[in-house]
Amino acid sequence: MAEKEISQAVIARLPRYFRYLGELKDEGVERVSSQDLSILMHVTASQIRQDFNNFGGFGQQGYGYNVEYLYNEIGNILGLDRTHHLIIIGAGNLGQALANYMNFERRGFIFEGIFDRNSELYGKQLRNLTIQPMEEMESFVKKHDIDIAVLTLPKTAAVEVAETLVNCGIRAFWNFAHCDLNVPEGIQVENVHLSDSLIKLSYNLNTNSHDLEDKDN
Amino acid sequence: MAEKEISQAVIARLPRYFRYLGELKDEGVERVSSQDLSILMHVTASQIRQDFNNFGGFGQQGYGYNVEYLYNEIGNILGLDRTHHLIIIGAGNLGQALANYMNFERRGFIFEGIFDRNSELYGKQLRNLTIQPMEEMESFVKKHDIDIAVLTLPKTAAVEVAETLVNCGIRAFWNFAHCDLNVPEGIQVENVHLSDSLIKLSYNLNTNSHDLEDKDN
Repeated sequence: MAEKEISQAVIARLPRYFRYLGELKDEGVERVSSQDLSILMHVTASQIRQDFNNFGGFGQQGYGYNVEYLYNEIGNILGLDRTHHLIIIGAGNLGQALANYMNFERRGFIFEGIFDRNSELYGKQLRNLTIQPMEEMESFVKKHDIDIAVLTLPKTAAVEVAETLVNCGIRAFWNFAHCDLNVPEGIQVENVHLSDSLIKLSYNLNTNSHDLEDKDN
Repeated sequence: MAEKEISQAVIARLPRYFRYLGELKDEGVERVSSQDLSILMHVTASQIRQDFNNFGGFGQQGYGYNVEYLYNEIGNILGLDRTHHLIIIGAGNLGQALANYMNFERRGFIFEGIFDRNSELYGKQLRNLTIQPMEEMESFVKKHDIDIAVLTLPKTAAVEVAETLVNCGIRAFWNFAHCDLNVPEGIQVENVHLSDSLIKLSYNLNTNSHDLEDKDN
């Protein structure tokens, strides 16, 4: 897709552009300038142009970007023109919440299976998915064309399960386990460390209270 | 707490240091060098020293950092020496999953209430919490000393609810709604945009397949 290496900071901003462009498209907006996008998204117009220049600039004319074209182009860059097949490992509260969330499917992320160690959960139905025993995971992955494994299991189990899955051919992990995965090069990991995120909020909350006190003086 | 402005990139790395130091502490390790931490955490030792220098360096001696001291100091910087009181707005799958997750409490993040618009959920018990009607939210926040609101509700409702909560005195949002909040200065927002995270993984997965092909040539 992209010929040159794009920084992860730019890539992390692309889904947000995609989200705003989708909203503009849904509202029937046909053209948008980097200025207007800038005001809407609270980033500078020059940041937007720089980010877009990584991908050839998307041909902004004097009168702005074509919203639908830009939306589709960024979608293609993000791989959203393809369908991805996912399994969820760990059918606790979070795993079940993700399995039940339908918006991922709208973007082409299809949950194909969900697995857990807890035999009390076997057979439980979540929408069109049935919770299966962990023992079934390997053969399931080998039989189906699974791209992404979602890890919503305790950290004590995550590392070993990830190893098994790499050996089965899984190339991407969406990791909610509270640990880092050491995977071979070429395997993609996107971490969602909820505790880390909440702790960062705690820092900013506590630091800001001091800032405010300083400002009052 | 911190006297000078620390970059958000450094702050985002602190919870990870805290996590690794906690594990070392639990394993009974008393001292660790930046070298050892570097190998463990897959970051450079110079990055670690630079990050720590933002907070005075934590007095590494020739023989490394005192693990328990460093763990406690970073915990204090992160505000984890205090208790935080949270409410959850939106008792769908994700809101319930968070309410049921006990590890946040271990870090001093106490869920005090959970609210939803759906009358079928009223009265449902999640551990020690009872799902309450949204109409109770304002008076609840005013009566209790709530620091952080967790938004696990649809984006169509999130912006308005956040506004109400700001007016009730909430100063920090942990936002899972698929939108950005425009809050007044001094109000902290930490976003967890799950779709954006999954889409970023999709980009890296699809781009990497090309990288691999290039390497094969």
